Amino acid sequence: MPAPKHRSGCPVSVSLDYLGDRWSLLIIRDLMVRGYQTFKEFQQSGENIATNILSDRLQKLEAAGILTAKPAPEDLRRIHYRLTEKGVALAPVIYELLIWAGRHGKTGAPCAVIEHMARNREHVLAEVRRRWEQQDLTPILPTFKKEKHK
Amino acid sequence: MPAPKHRSGCPVSVSLDYLGDRWSLLIIRDLMVRGYQTFKEFQQSGENIATNILSDRLQKLEAAGILTAKPAPEDLRRIHYRLTEKGVALAPVIYELLIWAGRHGKTGAPCAVIEHMARNREHVLAEVRRRWEQQDLTPILPTFKKEKHK
Repeated sequence: MPAPKHRSGCPVSVSLDYLGDRWSLLIIRDLMVRGYQTFKEFQQSGENIATNILSDRLQKLEAAGILTAKPAPEDLRRIHYRLTEKGVALAPVIYELLIWAGRHGKTGAPCAVIEHMARNREHVLAEVRRRWEQQDLTPILPTFKKEKHK
Repeated sequence: MPAPKHRSGCPVSVSLDYLGDRWSLLIIRDLMVRGYQTFKEFQQSGENIATNILSDRLQKLEAAGILTAKPAPEDLRRIHYRLTEKGVALAPVIYELLIWAGRHGKTGAPCAVIEHMARNREHVLAEVRRRWEQQDLTPILPTFKKEKHK
């Protein structure tokens, strides 16, 4: 799969050539903060992604060098997905989207949780990287219910 | 125009319900760091956005409370767009997308510019907010050419 043709030289625009859709950053979130690594886990992640869209996005993200797809050590017929260095470098983007909607949107995240995370930016980002480096799959974030806070 | 129906309670997912496409964050970029405020300026911004898509995105962003559309003081037949508090709060998201692609993608931004911005995060974000508060339309960023760096 070829890399996308860039619309301009602006880095924001180039980012969105890779990530500008409703799903790609959710798959990256699942890998980054939930410890998910299989197709089935992404599929059951709570947003009801369609199978064909999930396949397409995984292929695009792999082609972009954001994740790798490799046979699982314990069962070579299964594929495990993992973020690359380029992929885990998206942690600040995911973090800022989370803080923004937590403060300005109707989400399932209690304000206290969001403000705690906002006060501990460096700690949260360091913890994401540590878990990625050590392949520690413990979730950092719970899956928030669809209740209305704020 | 009604607010989008959220797919889940996760703040990252809620963010992408509003911003998860290839264009919305580019319009926000134009308002935030280029000082653009008219339909024509967004249209000529360098990514060749189609007129109907631009109209649609402006309406959605207004409905989401991210920008306002008001008659221009000097010519009431013209519309000026302006970010709201909720809109300017997206500065860290735009900033992190810019740093990420500047480091990991092929963009027109020289590495030195990106690393200078990366070292001065708080200053850049404070300057974005100051210009927004004072309605100072001086661009913060140049428009990067489509050359290949990195």
